Amino acid sequence: MGSAAASPPPSGKLTQDELKRVAAHRAVEFVEPGMTLGLGTGSTAAHALDRLGDLLRAGALPGVAGVPTSLKTEAHASAVGIPLLPLDAASGARIALSIDGADEVDPDLNLVKGRGGSLLREKMIEGAGDRFVVIVDESKLVPRLGCTGAIPVEVIPFGAPHTLGLIRNLFDGLPGFHARLRTVPAAKGEDLEQPFVTDNGNYIVEMFFEDGIRGDLRDISDRLLRITGVVEHGMFLGMATTVIVANKDGTVAVMGRRK
Amino acid sequence: MGSAAASPPPSGKLTQDELKRVAAHRAVEFVEPGMTLGLGTGSTAAHALDRLGDLLRAGALPGVAGVPTSLKTEAHASAVGIPLLPLDAASGARIALSIDGADEVDPDLNLVKGRGGSLLREKMIEGAGDRFVVIVDESKLVPRLGCTGAIPVEVIPFGAPHTLGLIRNLFDGLPGFHARLRTVPAAKGEDLEQPFVTDNGNYIVEMFFEDGIRGDLRDISDRLLRITGVVEHGMFLGMATTVIVANKDGTVAVMGRRK
Repeated sequence: MGSAAASPPPSGKLTQDELKRVAAHRAVEFVEPGMTLGLGTGSTAAHALDRLGDLLRAGALPGVAGVPTSLKTEAHASAVGIPLLPLDAASGARIALSIDGADEVDPDLNLVKGRGGSLLREKMIEGAGDRFVVIVDESKLVPRLGCTGAIPVEVIPFGAPHTLGLIRNLFDGLPGFHARLRTVPAAKGEDLEQPFVTDNGNYIVEMFFEDGIRGDLRDISDRLLRITGVVEHGMFLGMATTVIVANKDGTVAVMGRRK
Repeated sequence: MGSAAASPPPSGKLTQDELKRVAAHRAVEFVEPGMTLGLGTGSTAAHALDRLGDLLRAGALPGVAGVPTSLKTEAHASAVGIPLLPLDAASGARIALSIDGADEVDPDLNLVKGRGGSLLREKMIEGAGDRFVVIVDESKLVPRLGCTGAIPVEVIPFGAPHTLGLIRNLFDGLPGFHARLRTVPAAKGEDLEQPFVTDNGNYIVEMFFEDGIRGDLRDISDRLLRITGVVEHGMFLGMATTVIVANKDGTVAVMGRRK
């Protein structure tokens, strides 16, 4: 696959959006003809969709199709000419590679995703593939997950305040920890904030840790998932196989691990 | 509390419904004035609701209120005069005791529930209480969970066939195991069966084991809950504190464990 045009040469200080594009173009170099791809959601993944569309139109990637992780991505991918498959057809076809951004990446390539409110479909699709390439700018690299913002948890609406209480109990007494139900501003003419509702009709609990979450993340994950009202959380542990980081100076670092 | 009228005297062979009533009346003897109760769903739990209503009207249980596990139970409890609370108010008030039936009870008092299609609200409410009294007739006692029918798993509709595939993979190669999406008959004028939809808008996968599920049930539970599309399952492990069994001859056995 031609990659000469994939990464613009380093040229002094790039904007954050330019950095995202640099990383996204580098990720698309992993795509080979005939692959079924998991297509991520968000501003960084959008650059990958544009690049894929360019290469498809140029005839460079015959037989490539994508499984979108959101309705927004579905619309964008269609607009740039990427053939689409639903997850179910793809589980027969096997997703070879997913490409998506992340809110945070730790030194073990664990991720936080879902601060935009969407995590379950991403986790399902990106967990189904053989490889998962994550594209970020260097501001997303953290020493511990939860350093720069919330870790989201998707919960069933029924009993959500009760579920929130059980999540708080998990971290009871941990200094600086707090958790809250994510809300959206009140609609015009209404007094109260409304709960944010996910693509799956669920709510989001946001967990905040002072200086990041510490401990055995897989154990913490199991403890969260054992709470009856919890559907899924935004820690993507051991899922990323490659992380592509665009640095402020325009250079790109590629970090990898076996799945 | 008076219990003289709670259990009819043994009188030869009782019908299954009479056995359910015997067990339910015995369970209600655990209720004390002022308690907030988790109110179960189903034909056995319905007898407990009737009995509670009788005692409340007689003035024997002042200050008792209930948290219903279904809309059906909510309607029934209202009809017999049991004051109701939502789960959220109750989590402040603390559920002292829940009473519900079960599809199966194993020797460690682990349960299968949810063959009627509803398990998540039950698990949430019955897991929130200090004590959980289960009422069954002896046909529900099994050597291993899954001996007499399906173990249900509640899954997110998005990607449900993919999630079903991952559940099948968990038990890959296990002789006699199969799993399927629960369906309801096609509506008039439609050709295809439709997926059964839970109170929470989710689907149900039914797992069938030849001669019951073997192995470390908590480990199996964790492996199910780690599948991204899985919300909850119908194995209630370590939740029941008391199991009341009505035998065919009209005698009642009470089995207990510390929570």
